[in-house]
Formats: sequence, structure tokens, C-alpha cells
Amino acid sequence: MSEIAHLGPVELLTPKFDASLAFFTDVMGLEIHAQEGDSTYLRGWGDYQRWSLKLTASDRSGMGVLGIRAWSPEALERRVAAIAATGLGGGWTDGDLGRGPSYRFRDPDGHVFEIYYECERYVAPPGLEPALKNIPGRNLGRGIACKRLDHINILAADVRANREFCTDALGYRLYERIELDDGVEAGAWMSASIAAHELIYTHDARDAHGRLHHLAFWVDTREECLRAADLWLDAGVEIEAAPSKHAIAAGFFLYGIEPGGNRIEVTTGGRFVYAPDEPVVVWTEADRKKGQAWGVKTVESFHTYGTPPVD
Amino acid sequence: MSEIAHLGPVELLTPKFDASLAFFTDVMGLEIHAQEGDSTYLRGWGDYQRWSLKLTASDRSGMGVLGIRAWSPEALERRVAAIAATGLGGGWTDGDLGRGPSYRFRDPDGHVFEIYYECERYVAPPGLEPALKNIPGRNLGRGIACKRLDHINILAADVRANREFCTDALGYRLYERIELDDGVEAGAWMSASIAAHELIYTHDARDAHGRLHHLAFWVDTREECLRAADLWLDAGVEIEAAPSKHAIAAGFFLYGIEPGGNRIEVTTGGRFVYAPDEPVVVWTEADRKKGQAWGVKTVESFHTYGTPPVD
Amino acid sequence: MSEIAHLGPVELLTPKFDASLAFFTDVMGLEIHAQEGDSTYLRGWGDYQRWSLKLTASDRSGMGVLGIRAWSPEALERRVAAIAATGLGGGWTDGDLGRGPSYRFRDPDGHVFEIYYECERYVAPPGLEPALKNIPGRNLGRGIACKRLDHINILAADVRANREFCTDALGYRLYERIELDDGVEAGAWMSASIAAHELIYTHDARDAHGRLHHLAFWVDTREECLRAADLWLDAGVEIEAAPSKHAIAAGFFLYGIEPGGNRIEVTTGGRFVYAPDEPVVVWTEADRKKGQAWGVKTVESFHTYGTPPVD
Amino acid sequence: MSEIAHLGPVELLTPKFDASLAFFTDVMGLEIHAQEGDSTYLRGWGDYQRWSLKLTASDRSGMGVLGIRAWSPEALERRVAAIAATGLGGGWTDGDLGRGPSYRFRDPDGHVFEIYYECERYVAPPGLEPALKNIPGRNLGRGIACKRLDHINILAADVRANREFCTDALGYRLYERIELDDGVEAGAWMSASIAAHELIYTHDARDAHGRLHHLAFWVDTREECLRAADLWLDAGVEIEAAPSKHAIAAGFFLYGIEPGGNRIEVTTGGRFVYAPDEPVVVWTEADRKKGQAWGVKTVESFHTYGTPPVD
Repeated sequence: MSEIAHLGPVELLTPKFDASLAFFTDVMGLEIHAQEGDSTYLRGWGDYQRWSLKLTASDRSGMGVLGIRAWSPEALERRVAAIAATGLGGGWTDGDLGRGPSYRFRDPDGHVFEIYYECERYVAPPGLEPALKNIPGRNLGRGIACKRLDHINILAADVRANREFCTDALGYRLYERIELDDGVEAGAWMSASIAAHELIYTHDARDAHGRLHHLAFWVDTREECLRAADLWLDAGVEIEAAPSKHAIAAGFFLYGIEPGGNRIEVTTGGRFVYAPDEPVVVWTEADRKKGQAWGVKTVESFHTYGTPPVD
Repeated sequence: MSEIAHLGPVELLTPKFDASLAFFTDVMGLEIHAQEGDSTYLRGWGDYQRWSLKLTASDRSGMGVLGIRAWSPEALERRVAAIAATGLGGGWTDGDLGRGPSYRFRDPDGHVFEIYYECERYVAPPGLEPALKNIPGRNLGRGIACKRLDHINILAADVRANREFCTDALGYRLYERIELDDGVEAGAWMSASIAAHELIYTHDARDAHGRLHHLAFWVDTREECLRAADLWLDAGVEIEAAPSKHAIAAGFFLYGIEPGGNRIEVTTGGRFVYAPDEPVVVWTEADRKKGQAWGVKTVESFHTYGTPPVD
Repeated sequence: MSEIAHLGPVELLTPKFDASLAFFTDVMGLEIHAQEGDSTYLRGWGDYQRWSLKLTASDRSGMGVLGIRAWSPEALERRVAAIAATGLGGGWTDGDLGRGPSYRFRDPDGHVFEIYYECERYVAPPGLEPALKNIPGRNLGRGIACKRLDHINILAADVRANREFCTDALGYRLYERIELDDGVEAGAWMSASIAAHELIYTHDARDAHGRLHHLAFWVDTREECLRAADLWLDAGVEIEAAPSKHAIAAGFFLYGIEPGGNRIEVTTGGRFVYAPDEPVVVWTEADRKKGQAWGVKTVESFHTYGTPPVD
Repeated sequence: MSEIAHLGPVELLTPKFDASLAFFTDVMGLEIHAQEGDSTYLRGWGDYQRWSLKLTASDRSGMGVLGIRAWSPEALERRVAAIAATGLGGGWTDGDLGRGPSYRFRDPDGHVFEIYYECERYVAPPGLEPALKNIPGRNLGRGIACKRLDHINILAADVRANREFCTDALGYRLYERIELDDGVEAGAWMSASIAAHELIYTHDARDAHGRLHHLAFWVDTREECLRAADLWLDAGVEIEAAPSKHAIAAGFFLYGIEPGGNRIEVTTGGRFVYAPDEPVVVWTEADRKKGQAWGVKTVESFHTYGTPPVD
């Protein structure tokens, strides 16, 4: 049981705003919910909040603010106290579109987070109500038609320090991690639910700070992931890694680079962790040498590239 | 080996042209290739010809002209001679958009066919070339994004007479048929290739003539059929039969009614017939009482409704 | 956040033990873990506990003991106190194979539960270790190869009373429910996690007590559900409802009757509930008349049959 | 239209007979149909002939005799005459189990073929009849439960010469080919039907003769290919190439090495060629550098390894 409900919304920065927006709407199939200043607020048809992605024009790529929703007002209070105690707290903000008071802080690596409880649910406009009442929005079937934001993988120079901050101060559960032969922690997969992962840290090969590895959007089936690869191919999206299955967390993936330079994943599957006392799975260098679940060798760029790029 | 290459293109009549066109483009995901007079020419991204569906505004629903491509100029000549010999021949026409000389005829039930050989291949316009050179068009991923026209099921007062015309004069192969306890043939599944079916006749419950049962568009996977059901649901399309598997021919199906009243299928799967001497599978009334492959009982309308409707 | 980790293991009674065991091993693909007295302990390759299904020879069908694992020793203590306070508590037992102290109680309808915390994890025997270290067991690919126990639907004469017991005393979250026009609650879908449902109560059409509607086993994909239907068909399993999608909870299903008479589901999909304040979805009689998600009408037996059968 | 009905059965040689047999039965899910001398005859549940794979104990790996069924007795006669005219004919044999008179010959590279027309259909034994009458055998769901033999890829020192023999003497249709910058033909994909490929020649990197690249078995869905990868992984099968999509012919693949050393594919999908005048698709070196359909780089061994291995 975690005091965190889930991750998101997320702000993504792009130096090629128009092209990025076209990618997220035409290819990924997200809906435009609102526009304010340099930002467009987007959502998948299955996102219950008003938006899950804030795309912001910027002079650089990478992640802006990463939202985390607390389980309750009381949980929010307790988490803020715990964060403040670490000295990494920033202070309260007015939140963002449809979001109530938010407490801003940085993880040890410098990524900006906001934790909040209050937020508005999406209400489908007249004429666009979904056919089934347990689904937030209508699936219009445009492009990949991603259902919702799923998880994020952020780079950190010191994975262990950031992972410990997330488990100790935020209350995330740690499910899997990579430990190199020299004892260094090279990756940590955390979740606030039974889902395989939600917040991932992996080692920044450049030892830079505050960078993004990738942002992942959910589709319900592996077939939709395969179909996404076909659509990316025809749409001219740069495919970094063709669909296959991760060994770690067992998620099915497709990775590519959106026009603004950020790595985007279309994902589904992944294991469920039902045991409250599930042992943390530790992957060694020897394990990692076997490649992904079915032996696919990960391309080199996957281990080195992040946004914003480092010269 | 058949002297027929394949079925199509097909002309479909609709009394609600605009709504039908929106259905075929926005929901089914076909592309508009051309417009002439009261007709719009449409294609799936995997159709090799310039178009596979001609949607024509009319005061009624149902099928217009059903095209059949012969295997070669010589095969065309031989088939025309065989058709003419039955007394059902009409005569040569100039064909249609991108199609050469076509021989028009009627099946015994009165449906209008045109058999031809010459036709133009689709050439993707600059900027819309597909990424892979063995695919005719780019998959834009709009809605169901049907790949191509697959098969047609037409109603006939006398199935056997029409089936014999198709096997004898056209050279279709008969793969499966329904024979009622009284010996009446209630359905016949024919193909010009190893694919399970292409040209189907089923008994017209109203003993009317020249009517259409359904027109089927292909998707590559069963998951796309399931996804199509979700999209139809949210788009307000009338679902007549939810996705399931046919006993006959083993095809996976989704049936619904397009705005003009015509029954449309999204289909995939189906058995392949590799044996040149494959015995015809005969389904009895007792067999049919078991329902579809997994026991789903077919809705009554499926056995009685056709277009144009009969008062 | 719930103090319940998850549901299971479950004991299932069968008057045709050998045939039921053959069904669960050869067709469903579960593994035999142990045998004791009249019971065989079975598991899916993805179950983390030593067993998830206890199949017990009996003179009747239906459910035996339903296990529920508490989140922690402290959560167990608190839940036991809450249960005892309702007057429905039974007392502590020694648990079952590989399970520690368990508190036995009955729900208002009379079903027998045991709540526990301590349990042993499955350890794959030498030579049968899975290839990936985050999976409990090796997938041997026998038959449907169900991954794990997923959920249970039990019948109750008074759904509301039982549902309130589960939410109030056990701490389950209520996600969806059916409310008839006269205000009667006809079904309640509850979960201890983000998964769509885990513990379901539906109205017993016979107003009997302590009966089972169905037990559901998980596969990871809809395609595996479709494949399961093919395997059931060829294995002669009675298919009650062919694969389709539920409106409620959005799960994909296949229902049939195992040789002992109990209804079994092969399931996958289902919505995830990430919002901590997700409103309960209420389905009306009008909603239910639309059938399942894609309009499939539920067969009558589904609304009336349960085990043990009532004369 | 081809005078060839289809490819198969195929004889496969293995120096590790018991392990190979266990692989084909337990993992691939083929059924043992008969045993004679050093050979075991196997079949998929969807193979219409009595057997499609003859596994023969040998001191080497590789292909034994490759069967090809002619469309008719007359087609057989014509093909035999055409083969004899090339000087590559061997002479008539008694065929093999359940197969009538067969004409043995070698392709220019030296592989042994037998072309025949007469063969016996599989008849399911009492108690093992499939539930649906248009399916040859019951799907028992063991392991991958491959449906049938699909295609073969054989190595040749001179691809063009062998391809021309197959199109000219046998009457195969050529669908796709690889042409290197120096004009050398490095691969040729041929079929006797609308299916993407059935008989493939690729260049033998060792310039050896009579070797096998791989033998492919069909499953109906991509999901079954993905599932096959999971089963291979847990069964300890050497996965050479994880599931992905070929650019050439668009088939979905999984490649591995069976215990005897032969490369085996689990395949599905692939384009259908309906046009009788379909242009041959020519892939250049530049095309091939893009990798498979979604960019996966083919492992080096795929280009060099064949059976029997060459020192």
C-alpha cells in the first residue's frame, strides 16, 4: 500500500513544438484538451484526469514538471512533511490546469516534481460521451489511439540515492533493480500499485542531471504495439527499438524519438505484483548480457541518449 | 487453379450518401481516391488497384456492379465465352475508372457482374509512399484502417443455381456449403484462391432477387476486429453481431449496418485450402443449430435482412 | 489503499474429481503442486504462492473456503477485529498447506472465508526454474496454460448486505455495481487493487445461500482467450458464453462449465482504476438491456445457474 | 495460376534424434503420426495430409527430401516433362508413407525434391475427431501447437539459377527478390499461391551446396508467435531472432535452432498477392541495410549459418 495514487500528469518540453504536437495528436492519437501560453494540454481517451501530457514549447527537450497524485489529502500532508524533512522541498504552488494546490520539490538528481491531491476529472463534452459509462472518453481511433499515460523513466547520475528518496520520502514500492558487479545501482523500477512499474530511474551515462530517458503511453494489447510500429514506420517516426518484451518488469515495448528529440514508448503488458512482501528482483550484469526477454540486444543509443542531449 | 484472379471492385448503393461516406472514411478508414458524378471511389491501404469500393448515391441500398478480375486476357476470353453460352451475358462495357474493357452479365439471380482483365495499379502520390515497397499504400491509421476489400455475400432465391453458374461458367472453386434436411442448398462458399471464401451465396429468406447480404473488409488480425467493435460502439454504428468466429470457413467476424442500411463485415482469419482435391464441406441443419464456432447463436436479422430491404 | 493484498487461494468442490482434475491440468494447464486427502493443490505458472486452487472431491459442487491475504500482520489484526465486531467471525485455524494462522469467518450470505497473512512462496524445483527471474514458474505451455487465479464471483441472496460487509469490514474498494429500478442491488464488483475486480457478488436468482457463480483464471492476452475457446471446443468442454467483452469492468471473458458443474472463466483485460476517488459506476436495468460491451445478449443460464445447483 | 498445389511434406535430418523429436512434439506441438525405420512422421493439427514433417535420424543435420504436390495428374505429367527436359530429373520412386508415385529430381544446387500428385488425407482416429468439420485434426493445445508446415528457405550458391529452375520448370511464381549492387541475386521468394512465400532461396554464404536455411511452421496469429518465444525461452530452445516482422514478404517470425542444429521458424502473417500481374518486388542493398520491417538488424548468424554446417 502506497500513499501515492499514481504518476502524472507530465510536462514535456520540445524545441519543435508544431511537429511534436502533430506527432502526439496524429500519430499517437492523443486529444487536445486545452491550450495556454506555450503549452498544449493533451489526453488519452482513457485518462481520467483532464489531461495527462502538457506539451510545452521550449528551447530544449526533456521533462518539465512531473506530477504525482497523493492517495488522499492526509497522505499528501504526510508526504509533503517527509519531503520537506529531506531538505529537497520547494514550496506550494497553485498547481496547473484543473489541479489544486501542489507541493513542488526536486529529487536528488534535480528533476522537478509536484505532488498534489485535488484535481478535476475529465467530463466528455456533449456529443462525445463514450458508449460505456466506465470509460472516461470516446475512443476516436486516430492513429495509435494511446489510452493513457503509463510510466516514466528518468535518468540520474546516482540511481540509488534517487530511488531511496522515492521509496522513503514518497513511499514508492521498489520492484526490480539492476546492480552492477561493482555494486552500483544502474536502474530501479518502482510503482505505487500492482502494475509493474510507474517511476523508473536509470543511470545517466553522461553523469548529467535532470534528464529524461523516456515517457510511456499505454495501449491495451501487444497487437496495438505491433500496429503502432507499422504506423510509426509509415509516418516516418524514428524507431529506436522495434516491439519486443523487456526482461525487467516484463513489459512489451516500442521505442522511438518524437520530433522534439524525446524518447517515447508505446507500452503494454508487464507483470502484476500482488504479494505485499514481494522480494525485489535484482538483475546482474550477467543477466543483462542476455538482452531483452527474448534475447534482443538493446541498441547502444538506448543506454546513452537522453533529453536534453548533452554535448 | 481458377481462371479468376479475385473479386472486386464492388459498387455499393446508399440512400444516405454523406453518412455512408463518413462511415467508410472516418470509421472504416478507407481513403477517397476519386469522385465522379454520384460516386466516390474508395480504397484500403492494401488494395493494389486504384479503388476497391465505389460508393454511389442512390434511392436504394444494395449492391451495384460487382467486378471480377480474370487471371489473364486469355482467361477473360474463355470466361466470357462460357458466360455467353449460358445466355446470361450482357455485353462489353468501357469498364470503370482505371479499368479496361469489361464484360457485363447477370448471375441467375439477377446480380450485375463485370468481368475484366485490364486495370490500373494504385500509385501512391508523392509524399504518401509507404515505407515498405511491397505494400501499395501508406497506412494512415485512421479508425479501423481496413486493409482491403475481402469478400462478398449475396443473397439468392436459388443458391444452387447461382453456385453452379459460378463454378461452371466462372470457374470458382466451391469450398463449403449448407444443405438443409430437404436437400435445398442454403449457402455456398466459393473462392478463386486458397483463401477461405471470396464469393458467397446464401438463401434469400424473402425469395427476392439481386440483393446483398454483406460486404467484407479485411484487417490482418483478430485484435483489429475486436478494436473495430470498440470503435463502432463509440462511433454509434449499429453492431449486428459482435466479434466471434464462424464455424463455416473459420473466419473471424464483426457485423454491423452502415448508415445507408447495408450490412458490413470487418473480417480476418479463415482457413486456407491448399489441397487441389479438397472435399467440399457440407454443413447440415443439425450442424448449424450448434451456432457459430464457439456456440454463439446468430441473431435472427442475420438470416432475414438484406439490401435493398423488401417490404 | 486497501488492507487486503489479494484474493485466494480458493477451494473448489467437485462431485467428479477425476474429470475435474483432468480439466484443470490438461485443458486449463494448471500444475499439480501437492495432494492431501481428498484434495489436490494446483497452481498457474504465474501464481507466486505455492498453490491457488484446491480441488476437493465432494458430494457436491461449489466453493469451499475462500482465502484472502491481508497486506501485513497488522492489517490482518485490524481486519480480524473488524470482522469479529460484525459477529460473523469464526475463529483461528491452522490455515492450509503453506499458509499460516488463518481467521475463519462467513460473509452474511454464508460463504466461508479465511483471512491470513503468512504464506509460503512457490519455489521452482531444480530443473524447472523459469528463464526469467521475475516469474515464479516455468510456462510449460500445456493447454490454455492459465497464468494465475484472478477473481471470483459469488452469489448472494442480498448483494448489498454482503458488499457492505466486504467494503466495511474487509476494506475492499467498490468499483461498479448494478442497481435495479426498484433500488435492489443486483451485483457489486470489488477489488483490493487497481485491477477491475477481484471479489464480485451477484444476486442469487434462487435466493439460495453460499453458492458460487464462477471462478476466473487469468491469461495475459485476448488472443489467449480466443485460443482457449478453440481448445475448449476440441476438448468437449461445455462453452456457456463465447469470448467477448463485458460492459461492466471491461474484462474479456470465456465462460464454460467444468466437469464437476462449476462455472469457470478464462479472463483477461479489464480496466485499471488509478483514481483514489473514482466514482462508483452504477449500471441500471436499461444499461443491462444493451447486453455486453458489444451487444452480446447474455445467455439465460448465466443469470440463474450457480453451484451447488438448487433443485 | 501455378501447376503446383503446395510445398511439402519435408524430411529433416538430425544427428540428435531424441532431442529433436522432443522439440517437435513437446515444444512445437506436432503429433506423431507414424514411425518407420529411422524416421518419425509428424503433423500439425491443421495439416490435411497424413504428415508434413519426416524427422530422420542421421549423422548430419539438414534437409532430406523436399516434397511438392502438383495440382493434378496432368499438371504432374507436364512438370515432370519440364524437369526432365532440364536434365535434372532423377526418376520415379514409390513415394513415401501415404504418397503415390513421385518423381525425384535435384535443383541446380543439388537439393533433392520429389513431385507427386497422389496422397492420402489425414483421417482423425475415433475419439480424436475435431469439433469442426472443416479442420483436419483436433487442436490438443500442446506447447506452441503449430498448425501446419508453411514454407522452406534453402541455401544455394547460385540463387538465380535455382530460382529460374523453379519458375520455369516447376511453375512457381516469383514475388520478391534481393538484388545486390553488383547484380547478383541474393534471395528469391516464390509461391504457388496467394500466400507471400512458400519456397525461398537465399545465397549460401559458404558457397556450399544442398543446404537448408530454415523450415517454417505456421500459427494463425502474431500473438501465438510471441507466446512461442516465451515457451522457447522456458524450454531452453536457442532463440536466434526474437519475434518481429520481415520487410520482405511481410511475414511475422521467430527463429531458433532445434536440438539437431536446424534453424526452425514459427511464422504467421505475410502479404497476399491477388494480382495475377503483380510486379516482382526487388530489394536492394540499401533497402536491406534498413533491417527488418521495424528496423531490427538481423543477427550475423542468420546470414551465414545453414545445415549441415560447413567447416
